[in-house]
Amino acid sequence: MHAIGVDIGGTKIAAGVVDDEGRILAQTRRDTEPDDAASIDAAIADAYAELSAQHPVKAIGLAAAGFVAADRSGVLFAPNIAWRDYPLRDRVAALIDEKVDIVVENDANAAGWAEFRFGSARDVDDMLTLTIGTGLGGAVVSNGALVRGFAGVAAEVGHMRVVPGGHYCGCGHEGCWEQYASGSALVRDAQAAAVAFPDRAQRIVELAGGRADKIVGPYVTKAAEEGDELAIQLLAELGRWIGEGAASVAALLDPAMVVIGGGVAAAGDLLLEPARKGFGDQLSARGHRPEATIVIASMGNDAGIVGAADLARL
Amino acid sequence: MHAIGVDIGGTKIAAGVVDDEGRILAQTRRDTEPDDAASIDAAIADAYAELSAQHPVKAIGLAAAGFVAADRSGVLFAPNIAWRDYPLRDRVAALIDEKVDIVVENDANAAGWAEFRFGSARDVDDMLTLTIGTGLGGAVVSNGALVRGFAGVAAEVGHMRVVPGGHYCGCGHEGCWEQYASGSALVRDAQAAAVAFPDRAQRIVELAGGRADKIVGPYVTKAAEEGDELAIQLLAELGRWIGEGAASVAALLDPAMVVIGGGVAAAGDLLLEPARKGFGDQLSARGHRPEATIVIASMGNDAGIVGAADLARL
Amino acid sequence: MHAIGVDIGGTKIAAGVVDDEGRILAQTRRDTEPDDAASIDAAIADAYAELSAQHPVKAIGLAAAGFVAADRSGVLFAPNIAWRDYPLRDRVAALIDEKVDIVVENDANAAGWAEFRFGSARDVDDMLTLTIGTGLGGAVVSNGALVRGFAGVAAEVGHMRVVPGGHYCGCGHEGCWEQYASGSALVRDAQAAAVAFPDRAQRIVELAGGRADKIVGPYVTKAAEEGDELAIQLLAELGRWIGEGAASVAALLDPAMVVIGGGVAAAGDLLLEPARKGFGDQLSARGHRPEATIVIASMGNDAGIVGAADLARL
Amino acid sequence: MHAIGVDIGGTKIAAGVVDDEGRILAQTRRDTEPDDAASIDAAIADAYAELSAQHPVKAIGLAAAGFVAADRSGVLFAPNIAWRDYPLRDRVAALIDEKVDIVVENDANAAGWAEFRFGSARDVDDMLTLTIGTGLGGAVVSNGALVRGFAGVAAEVGHMRVVPGGHYCGCGHEGCWEQYASGSALVRDAQAAAVAFPDRAQRIVELAGGRADKIVGPYVTKAAEEGDELAIQLLAELGRWIGEGAASVAALLDPAMVVIGGGVAAAGDLLLEPARKGFGDQLSARGHRPEATIVIASMGNDAGIVGAADLARL
Repeated sequence: MHAIGVDIGGTKIAAGVVDDEGRILAQTRRDTEPDDAASIDAAIADAYAELSAQHPVKAIGLAAAGFVAADRSGVLFAPNIAWRDYPLRDRVAALIDEKVDIVVENDANAAGWAEFRFGSARDVDDMLTLTIGTGLGGAVVSNGALVRGFAGVAAEVGHMRVVPGGHYCGCGHEGCWEQYASGSALVRDAQAAAVAFPDRAQRIVELAGGRADKIVGPYVTKAAEEGDELAIQLLAELGRWIGEGAASVAALLDPAMVVIGGGVAAAGDLLLEPARKGFGDQLSARGHRPEATIVIASMGNDAGIVGAADLARL
Repeated sequence: MHAIGVDIGGTKIAAGVVDDEGRILAQTRRDTEPDDAASIDAAIADAYAELSAQHPVKAIGLAAAGFVAADRSGVLFAPNIAWRDYPLRDRVAALIDEKVDIVVENDANAAGWAEFRFGSARDVDDMLTLTIGTGLGGAVVSNGALVRGFAGVAAEVGHMRVVPGGHYCGCGHEGCWEQYASGSALVRDAQAAAVAFPDRAQRIVELAGGRADKIVGPYVTKAAEEGDELAIQLLAELGRWIGEGAASVAALLDPAMVVIGGGVAAAGDLLLEPARKGFGDQLSARGHRPEATIVIASMGNDAGIVGAADLARL
Repeated sequence: MHAIGVDIGGTKIAAGVVDDEGRILAQTRRDTEPDDAASIDAAIADAYAELSAQHPVKAIGLAAAGFVAADRSGVLFAPNIAWRDYPLRDRVAALIDEKVDIVVENDANAAGWAEFRFGSARDVDDMLTLTIGTGLGGAVVSNGALVRGFAGVAAEVGHMRVVPGGHYCGCGHEGCWEQYASGSALVRDAQAAAVAFPDRAQRIVELAGGRADKIVGPYVTKAAEEGDELAIQLLAELGRWIGEGAASVAALLDPAMVVIGGGVAAAGDLLLEPARKGFGDQLSARGHRPEATIVIASMGNDAGIVGAADLARL
Repeated sequence: MHAIGVDIGGTKIAAGVVDDEGRILAQTRRDTEPDDAASIDAAIADAYAELSAQHPVKAIGLAAAGFVAADRSGVLFAPNIAWRDYPLRDRVAALIDEKVDIVVENDANAAGWAEFRFGSARDVDDMLTLTIGTGLGGAVVSNGALVRGFAGVAAEVGHMRVVPGGHYCGCGHEGCWEQYASGSALVRDAQAAAVAFPDRAQRIVELAGGRADKIVGPYVTKAAEEGDELAIQLLAELGRWIGEGAASVAALLDPAMVVIGGGVAAAGDLLLEPARKGFGDQLSARGHRPEATIVIASMGNDAGIVGAADLARL
């Protein structure tokens, strides 16, 4: 059965028709206004109209960055969109004449689900996906089922505390994993290094046009690929935190696989090797148990669309 | 359907016939020899013979402290019993003439399952049980199913890292949650306080017959109940770590309830109030989500028997 | 012998004639331009002219926020003024016709020295002063002598690391004491609390006109004085870090007294009691040694002027 | 002027006559009984008689492991010898007929002073010596003077806290520097690694005769010198903590040199390189200040004798 998946970002939506094998048959985009929730509803309905004209579907999955209600009907809270207890499902349904099932899913859950069903983790039953962009999101599959939690807000892995008294987090707490294992963490560490070790940071700052405050993750990755020592160290530090945090998750959930997706995954082995080492170094009972593999995600930027569509037709 | 549950300790086993409501209809015990695995096999078969003569059963659940194989057939590794890749199921089956289903379960999983099915957590679908004695064990139920992980070693919550560079753990790592949230942690902190603050530790040391090295958890609890300031502080510290660690688990699993069992639970509100405060203080997105309740376990010392029996007949 | 002390701030200087007893006989001020080092030179010379006409002096002490050269001739680096390897002594001397000794001192050293000579610590030989405003500065006196270090940059206490992997510091490192024991730390913790615990932060946010981003230290202190629970807790946390850090310094230097000055000292006992508790709780070998007292500074805002003048005539 | 220095260990004393250049002209030893303070007094007097017959002296310096009274007359507390508020100076003086000045000094202070006067640090005025054996002791020289503190217990560097909630310390606190930068820390980390990574620890365990509990520091050093990866990593970790802690001390004291002595120093560059890297990585305001050098001590095992003698004749 075909379904439509919609990945709702801050300023645009991307929608696609997804078949039973996780392939995208057709795709479209709309610009939206993050402060205007109705503009998003309309864009979704409009994208549905366009796509369903080409491929009849029975279900729509909406992937949203935020806390999603346990009944998958809406969003409790979103950091970047004007949604507060917003009944997204019903608002979109009101704009669509046909009968179609609509469900709302957390975007990291959707992306992780795509990896589980069709991507890197398609052969395992127990999985952790980490989606590492600016922030750190996650998805947990246990025994073949997505772990949503009682309130629908499970897998907020970025807010596990990994350092008591550690870096401030935008959530109001200190030492959240996201502050050590995310693109933002990489950028801030790089900027801090530019202050503390100006000599060693020369190449990274140069790539940023000479301005430390303009450093972004891809500059660090580029410098590392050129062999820049500090850049390699910064990615290794990021990887170490990814792996060490994943070892804590593994103590709790014992996944067969940890999948790393999101923009940060572009660093490849420069990130993956330290992540594997950090994971192995911290894994409890190593040697007495089979060990999770750590791999890069394979579904790319469309993971959210594919996962949301697939979750909608379950 | 009735089933037998067996709780296998270091020096004895306790077995009972459990009915569908989690009631124990008959119970028996045998002494065993931890260095002699065959003595345990025999004791189990013997207890089965005694109990099955009174109540016919179709299944036996064996609760074992250790890493249990994913197929529930045996024990990969046990810290206190001479089991290494031990096929416990088949060894016991060989001593029993009748046809009976036998499964091996981790003891903390069994105890937590009893709470989930018949105890404090019987009305929720998503639960974390912490069994806090000398060590810290756990059980996770997600959407009504026990989370076992791909290798069968999920819910080793005691080995989540909560302090990088923190207290040494017997597992070879540093900063494991068990080193902060267990009876052993309480005792060591009390002993350390006896060195660092001899005046404030006077009452606790007195209860231990004047010897700091004889301090055990119940002395701390007793002193706290008498109003001793240091003892109250030590329990509050223990409770804080329980709650703060549970908040990290909640970021990942979003349970409806955290159940606290094991010997440490005897401290009651002296432990529970600080645990709730620590949990609330560290819970991510507090206010935007329903919040787990933290309660004391209700199944007592028989939780392992009941849970193992119930898991065996599933 | 009278001497002039000058406290050089970001946008103004305050100068005074100081007698042998640490009394200020005359005082004056000038506005300055932080980006224009020459404007500061001129303002100092001008203030000198005004004051020396009233009271003849032989020495001028200049208290500067920054790293001061070991020979006290200038400033290696200043965070808030356009000084980089700036020969402040000679620049000022060039504007003064008379023969007068000029020395440059770190401002926290000057303030601490005033406490040592005429203030709270006048009766001890070994002292640590913490000047806690936006940042955390310090001064160390050992056996009656100011500890300057080999490069002149001793007593940068704010940059001792107290939490590995801790809060980012503007210096490019993580976990500096300043990030836990300063007015900035208080403000950030209060703002973070406003996110994490909106209910509990109500009064503090109200004092800030309803805007968390407008919270400043005095609002927290005011709320605490009214009995607000969160505000009291925030000050206690700040005090705890002051005391615990001071215990680390005491392990190294064994001072007879820790003097707490700077704007944060206004919180009085709300800060001092937790600081004393934190100090005592972490002091090594407590009970086997005499213990430092922790007191509030007594020299007020003029400490920099008095200390700089006194150091100039030594 | 010649003086006698005595290094008082747990089960023996070593005494020597030291000339103005720090050379030992004659040396002797006596066995002692740690539980019998009088046996130590007698041994000292006896060694004095032997040595002073060869070289006339006017002063005796006694280097003792423990908290030494501020007036250098005795020992407040010693961990390994039966001294509690023990008037060592007067007890020894009572056994000597001649008039001779006797002073008691902390042994790490004595060793550090020897480095300062005649050893690696003889050309600097501001120094930190770390004596790293089983434990971590230190000596601080500021502007040419030994920093003793107001109660005589300064330079207890091993008990600066470097990790909140960190490893337990025998002093009753958590996270003391000694638990990360000492021979004991090395041994425990090696033993923990033998549990967590049996494969990687093979060579170290082999050197220890196949028993992890028999691992001692020299085995780790030997394995590292052979190229064993884990051993190199363990020493690097130890070195990193030495360097990072020294950077915190440098923020406070700005020494020109950090001297590393004690048994651990035998690891040489395997320790020193990581120590220098850790120091540089954590040093505040690096680049804006001259930087301390980190070197190995040069006075060897006689440092205590030489330093105590020299301090006695000052």
